[in-house]
Amino acid sequence: MKNLVIGQSGGPTAVINASLYGAIKAFNEYGTGGHVLGMINGIEGFLSDEVIDLTETLSDEDLELLKLTPAAYLGSCRYKLPEDLTSEVYPAIFDNFKKMDIGYFLYIGGNDSMDTVDKLSRYAKNTESPVRFIGIPKTIDNDLVLTDHTPGFGSAARYVAATVREIVLDASVYQQKSVTIVEIMGRHAGWLTAASRLARKFEGDNPFLIYLPEAPFELEAFYHDLEEAFQKSPNVVVCVSEGIADAGGTFICEYSDAAKLDSFGHKMLTGCGEILESFVRDKFGVKVRSIELNVNQRCSGMLASLTDIEEASMAGSEGVKAALSGETGKMIAFARESSSPYRISCRTQDVGLICNQEKKFPAQWITEDGHDISDGFLAYALPLIQGEPKRIMEDGLPKYLYR
Amino acid sequence: MKNLVIGQSGGPTAVINASLYGAIKAFNEYGTGGHVLGMINGIEGFLSDEVIDLTETLSDEDLELLKLTPAAYLGSCRYKLPEDLTSEVYPAIFDNFKKMDIGYFLYIGGNDSMDTVDKLSRYAKNTESPVRFIGIPKTIDNDLVLTDHTPGFGSAARYVAATVREIVLDASVYQQKSVTIVEIMGRHAGWLTAASRLARKFEGDNPFLIYLPEAPFELEAFYHDLEEAFQKSPNVVVCVSEGIADAGGTFICEYSDAAKLDSFGHKMLTGCGEILESFVRDKFGVKVRSIELNVNQRCSGMLASLTDIEEASMAGSEGVKAALSGETGKMIAFARESSSPYRISCRTQDVGLICNQEKKFPAQWITEDGHDISDGFLAYALPLIQGEPKRIMEDGLPKYLYR
Repeated sequence: MKNLVIGQSGGPTAVINASLYGAIKAFNEYGTGGHVLGMINGIEGFLSDEVIDLTETLSDEDLELLKLTPAAYLGSCRYKLPEDLTSEVYPAIFDNFKKMDIGYFLYIGGNDSMDTVDKLSRYAKNTESPVRFIGIPKTIDNDLVLTDHTPGFGSAARYVAATVREIVLDASVYQQKSVTIVEIMGRHAGWLTAASRLARKFEGDNPFLIYLPEAPFELEAFYHDLEEAFQKSPNVVVCVSEGIADAGGTFICEYSDAAKLDSFGHKMLTGCGEILESFVRDKFGVKVRSIELNVNQRCSGMLASLTDIEEASMAGSEGVKAALSGETGKMIAFARESSSPYRISCRTQDVGLICNQEKKFPAQWITEDGHDISDGFLAYALPLIQGEPKRIMEDGLPKYLYR
Repeated sequence: MKNLVIGQSGGPTAVINASLYGAIKAFNEYGTGGHVLGMINGIEGFLSDEVIDLTETLSDEDLELLKLTPAAYLGSCRYKLPEDLTSEVYPAIFDNFKKMDIGYFLYIGGNDSMDTVDKLSRYAKNTESPVRFIGIPKTIDNDLVLTDHTPGFGSAARYVAATVREIVLDASVYQQKSVTIVEIMGRHAGWLTAASRLARKFEGDNPFLIYLPEAPFELEAFYHDLEEAFQKSPNVVVCVSEGIADAGGTFICEYSDAAKLDSFGHKMLTGCGEILESFVRDKFGVKVRSIELNVNQRCSGMLASLTDIEEASMAGSEGVKAALSGETGKMIAFARESSSPYRISCRTQDVGLICNQEKKFPAQWITEDGHDISDGFLAYALPLIQGEPKRIMEDGLPKYLYR
């Protein structure tokens, strides 16, 4: 009869609510009468008693909408628990657990969220609390270790691939030489930018050049790559991770920090795409455009992959089962059984081995010249972007669930 | 047995190829054996004999793909014919008509393209050429006069509405005060930015503030509007046309031109969204993000509206029928018979009355305070974004037709 409390943390994704859906459905089925409580704005809101009873408030119809609603229904936070487990924050949280009769704690998020799960489960162990703590992976960055991939990546990858494919068509309508630079999320890991490789329809199709943070980016080599690309087509599309850096470790987006002020003297933040745009325009004198895919790559419900939605839901559901069966301090992870036909299984991994780690894009999938992604990545990524959910529409637009 | 030549001109849209599809289908049906020739890169390519025989090269399967493929299958140009009809360009074009046995000329485009149709039809009249010239409207800007709306607008409006709805969800996940500024295409007409109004799901939902070029934009009033918006929610989403300007007529995007240089001293182009981002950050000290919807608003096949696709196809088909029936110097236009139920009819309008005109967003649909769109616009716009085509997918991504 214990209740389950669940929260969402870190940046939005298209499927973080599908994990919430999966957890609610599973706990309603297996939780022997306990309720699912939602933390509003993650652990930060929980500290101020901000919770809602999801078992009470969400109808079956709401749940189906929730499954397809992007971003974070419960709201999110970027709150890091103190390293020092003797901090007074911990007893405050655990007092709340008692007050709300919580037996199970699920946290849907990325690296930092797994750190929260790790600390709370260690504190619970120290204090012999019976509350069980399970992490549900979520990040478009796909940078969590010990799992084949993370929920959220497949939908973001599908957004990037479909969108870049359309950008390529758009960029190719004029005869005039042009360069289109697409900046894709990923500070340290290039998984999502690599997904732009999926946009290429045939040998010799754009995007010709793809640069990840895992390979050093040098301007002179870039100019050389562009010159080679112009041999193939007057219209060159380049995809770059926001976090590309030169061999010395300086981010390309830092190349302009000193001088970029608006007319009132305000410092303006610039992405690497915009910086490269001005460099290329100056160097080649051709038409250049930079496109920042921005937040829609992480919150597009309209382009979400069905595989990703179903896997996110499964991760939530498996998290509930793990907690109910007595596991704690674990994250739900995916193991790939086979790529063709695609088949994964769920398992739990120690959350302490996952938080504060970062899974880089594999070097063997970056071509030797450093500006393309090899075919090996296709077999890995293609299964993750498959399928479209049956969308719920209203007045020509997606109907989503609002809190 | 005369052939038809058809071209695409100006910026891409999601449905310019649907008009091409409609024209090919209609001419194959009614053209008594003539072929459809496609100009590669519009009239500019035609001048260099760059045409392909579409009747020969496109299979039925290709045509179905073409209907759903965004951007411009034939390529485009931004070539303006000389004002002086005695220029040697005209006989060159008409010699090509003779050489290729052309009886009908269709041009799919916006204002400038209608100017091309106008000049060619006037030259034909002067020289007693039997070739007939028909314009097929196309522009996401929706700024052509004498037609209820233009093919391309409905799909772009749907993209804007759906995307802003998702941006609103994304912007609302954190408790911290934030401003998200979405910059939408439209230099002189605010139709497309107004479509962001459709993203608002309920009274009091974002986007709170919408600014069009048709109303003067003043920084102080904007700050005041923002302060009012913060009374309603900590997260404020603002939608602006790229072409907003102050009462003196200065574009907001010009406010930073003087000082915005990168560290190598290159001048960088900036949109008004980015300018406002830095102003708001400085004024309010809150988290601010600007998002430029960029080319995807005009080339997203994945979010195209079925109504728009079908109407674009109909415009192409009606253009063929008009030409075959002997009309020339005309544009296919839509007249709205009813908004509910939605019903339009096609007619022809003198292209000379359309080119070099611009249909502004109606003042009565801008609220008195100048920062919102009134409900009257909803009845106009909602029918245009309805319906989803049955998409042709491959490997989880849209399958498009490549030349």
